[in-house]
Amino acid sequence: MKTVSVTRRERFSASHRLFNPNWTDEKNEKTFGKCSNKNWHGHNYILFVTVSGLVLEETGYVIDLKKLSEIIKDRVINKLDHFNLNLEVDFMKDTITSAENIAIKIFEELEPHIKNLDCKLQKVKLEETENNYVEYYGQ
Amino acid sequence: MKTVSVTRRERFSASHRLFNPNWTDEKNEKTFGKCSNKNWHGHNYILFVTVSGLVLEETGYVIDLKKLSEIIKDRVINKLDHFNLNLEVDFMKDTITSAENIAIKIFEELEPHIKNLDCKLQKVKLEETENNYVEYYGQ
Amino acid sequence: MKTVSVTRRERFSASHRLFNPNWTDEKNEKTFGKCSNKNWHGHNYILFVTVSGLVLEETGYVIDLKKLSEIIKDRVINKLDHFNLNLEVDFMKDTITSAENIAIKIFEELEPHIKNLDCKLQKVKLEETENNYVEYYGQ
Amino acid sequence: MKTVSVTRRERFSASHRLFNPNWTDEKNEKTFGKCSNKNWHGHNYILFVTVSGLVLEETGYVIDLKKLSEIIKDRVINKLDHFNLNLEVDFMKDTITSAENIAIKIFEELEPHIKNLDCKLQKVKLEETENNYVEYYGQ
Amino acid sequence: MKTVSVTRRERFSASHRLFNPNWTDEKNEKTFGKCSNKNWHGHNYILFVTVSGLVLEETGYVIDLKKLSEIIKDRVINKLDHFNLNLEVDFMKDTITSAENIAIKIFEELEPHIKNLDCKLQKVKLEETENNYVEYYGQ
Amino acid sequence: MKTVSVTRRERFSASHRLFNPNWTDEKNEKTFGKCSNKNWHGHNYILFVTVSGLVLEETGYVIDLKKLSEIIKDRVINKLDHFNLNLEVDFMKDTITSAENIAIKIFEELEPHIKNLDCKLQKVKLEETENNYVEYYGQ
Repeated sequence: MKTVSVTRRERFSASHRLFNPNWTDEKNEKTFGKCSNKNWHGHNYILFVTVSGLVLEETGYVIDLKKLSEIIKDRVINKLDHFNLNLEVDFMKDTITSAENIAIKIFEELEPHIKNLDCKLQKVKLEETENNYVEYYGQ
Repeated sequence: MKTVSVTRRERFSASHRLFNPNWTDEKNEKTFGKCSNKNWHGHNYILFVTVSGLVLEETGYVIDLKKLSEIIKDRVINKLDHFNLNLEVDFMKDTITSAENIAIKIFEELEPHIKNLDCKLQKVKLEETENNYVEYYGQ
Repeated sequence: MKTVSVTRRERFSASHRLFNPNWTDEKNEKTFGKCSNKNWHGHNYILFVTVSGLVLEETGYVIDLKKLSEIIKDRVINKLDHFNLNLEVDFMKDTITSAENIAIKIFEELEPHIKNLDCKLQKVKLEETENNYVEYYGQ
Repeated sequence: MKTVSVTRRERFSASHRLFNPNWTDEKNEKTFGKCSNKNWHGHNYILFVTVSGLVLEETGYVIDLKKLSEIIKDRVINKLDHFNLNLEVDFMKDTITSAENIAIKIFEELEPHIKNLDCKLQKVKLEETENNYVEYYGQ
Repeated sequence: MKTVSVTRRERFSASHRLFNPNWTDEKNEKTFGKCSNKNWHGHNYILFVTVSGLVLEETGYVIDLKKLSEIIKDRVINKLDHFNLNLEVDFMKDTITSAENIAIKIFEELEPHIKNLDCKLQKVKLEETENNYVEYYGQ
Repeated sequence: MKTVSVTRRERFSASHRLFNPNWTDEKNEKTFGKCSNKNWHGHNYILFVTVSGLVLEETGYVIDLKKLSEIIKDRVINKLDHFNLNLEVDFMKDTITSAENIAIKIFEELEPHIKNLDCKLQKVKLEETENNYVEYYGQ
C-alpha cells in the first residue's frame, strides 16, 4: 500500500481587520496600515486542505473527498463564510486575524476529525490575495 | 487608423453588506441572506476597465496604459481598497453595494477622465467571486 | 434605471464522443479523430451564463444570483454532471455533442426560465478545455 | 441553422521594445519608459482568436478546431514564438510593436484564411500581461 | 553544483468511472455515488511532473524540458488522452481509476525513464477538478 | 509559538537567450533550439518567494509582507523587470539564463536580507511559462 496526499480546495468570503487590542490606534495604524481600518475590509479566501494516508485497495481512495469536504464545511467554512473574522468566529476569539493565525486555527479545528478517518492532516494553505498565501504544517 | 479596445485589470479588497435601509432587518435577511450580515463580509474584487479608440500612429497606443492605470487608481481603487463600501466611499453613498451598482458607479467615476484622453469608456467588468461577475456598458 | 449584465459560472464533468450516426466509423474517425473514440472521453466543462436586465432600485440586483444558480443547476448541471452527454441527456438526444451544440441546447433550456424573471438571456459560453470555448447569443 | 462563436487560445513568447524611429532616444524613453529599453524585454503573449459561423448539421462544428489551430500556428505563432517582434517578423516590419498593433496585424494575417473556410474572423484578443489585454474586431 | 526541482505541466482529457468489480452495483453506487455512473463521466486532468537533479554547468539545465515533455507524452499522455481509463489503458488494468491510483501508476511509468537521465522523479501531482488534486512522492 | 510559511508572488517581464559562450553557434542551436535565438525572446516570469518563521504574538505575522515585497522589488524585480537577463543584470553575469540559474541567483540575492528579519528563506519558485517552473530550496 502506498501513501498519497489528497488536497481539497474550498473558499470563503469574510471581513476582518488586523488589530492588537493592547496597542494604541496609532501603533495599530503604524504597524498594520490600511489592514487596520476600523470599518473593516475583506477578502475571498481560498483554502487548500491537504491530507495524506494509505490508498485503500477497495476504493482507490485515501479519503472520501465528499467526507473531507463536509468536514471542512462543517468545521470551518460555515463558521467563516460571510462572517466577520474578528467578531463572529468562536475559534478566532482573542487572536489577531492574520492569514498565519487563521491557517493555524483552521488546522487545529480540522485535525481531530481527520485523525478519526485514519488520515494525517498534512497542511493547511490559505490564500488571502492572488499575491499572498501562507502554509501551516502543524508544528 | 483602426479602432482597438484596451483593457486594464486592477484589484481591491473591501468589506460590505447588502442592505436596504427602507426595509426591516427581517426583509433584508430574507432577501439578501448571509450577504446582509450586519457585521459585514468582504471580497477581493477584480476590476476590468475597457477603453476603445483609434490607434495613434506615433505610439501604436490607443491610450497610455500607465495613464489609464493612474486614473483608475486615483478615482476608484484608492477610494475602495481596504475600505467599507457602505460607510466610507463617497460615490457609493445611499446606494446598495451590489456588484451591479458598484460597476455602474465606477463607470460614472471614470467616464469623464477617459473622455478627456479622446477615448471611449466601453465597459466596466467587476468580478466579486470566481463564480460571479457583472458588466456595465454605460447605458 | 440602468441595464447591467450578470454572469454566473457553473461546472460539470461529463463523458461524450463526437459521432455522426449517418456516417461509417471510418468517416467519423477521419472527421473527428480521437474525439470520436467509441469508448468515450470526457471533460471538465465550464459554463458561463450571462443575463441582462434593469438594476432594481430596491435590491441593486438585476437578478438574484442564488435563483439564477438554482435554475442553471435544476435545468442543466443536474442533467449533465457526471453523465454521458450522448446517452443520458434528454435535451441532447439526436444531437452531435460538440461544444457548439451543447451551448445551443443549454441556451434553449434556460431561456424560458430567465424570461420568467424579467431578464434576457444574453449569452451561454462553454469552455471545453483551457484552449477552446464557444459562445452562443441565441440567434 | 444557428450562429456560434468559437475561440481558440494559443501562446507565444517573444522579445520586443516600443520605439518610434522618427524620435530621439530621449523622446522614446520619455514616452515608452522602460518598455523602450534598447536591449529588449519580452512577454508570454496569450492569443485568443474568435471565429463565428453557422453550426454545420453534419459535424456540429462551426469550424474544425484542429484546422483553426493549424492556421493560427502556420500564419502567426510560428513567426512570432521565440522571435524578436521588431527585427524578425515580416508582417510587423515598420510597425511599432505595441499590443494594439500586434493584434491588428495578426487579424490581417488570419482573416483571408478564415474566410476560405466560410467563417468570419470576429475578434483577435491579445494578452500581454495578466493586467493588460487588447481586442481588435477588424474595423 | 546545486539541486533544483523542475516541473512540467501536461494535460489529458479522458473518461472513467469508479467501480470495484468485487462489489454489487448497489455497493459501488453507495460508495462512489455519481462517480460510479456506468455510462462513464470524464475530466480534463492536469498533470504536473516534478524532477530534481543537479544543475549542469554547461547548460544551466537539470533536465532538457523538451526531453522531459517527450517522455511524459510517450509514456503517459498518448496512452490516456481521449481514452477510457478503465478500458483502454494498459497500465491501469485491474486498478480502480481514482486520482490516487492514476497518479501512482503515472509515477511508476515515468520513474525508470527519468532515472535514465540522471534525475530523480520527485512528485507526480494530478488535478482532477479545480477543487481536487492528489500528490504522490513514490513511497 | 508556531512556525508558518509565507509566500509572496511578484512578476517581471524580461528578454533573454540560452547560450553557452564556450560553444559554437551550431552547438548552442542544437542544444537550446529556438531558446538560443540571437535576437532574444522573452517571458512574463512569475516569482514566488517562500519565507518561514515563528508567528509573532504581537502581530500575528511571520514577516511583514510589505517589507518582504519591498526587499524582493529592491533586490530582484527592479533589476530584472523590462531588462535583458543576459546583458543587464549584475547578478546574472557569466551565468546561463536558464530558469534554474535565475532561481538560484534570486535565492542568493534574497537570503541575507531575509535572515536579517529573523526568518528563513525556504524556497524560490520561478514560473517561465504556464507549463514550466523550477524550485530552489537553497542547497
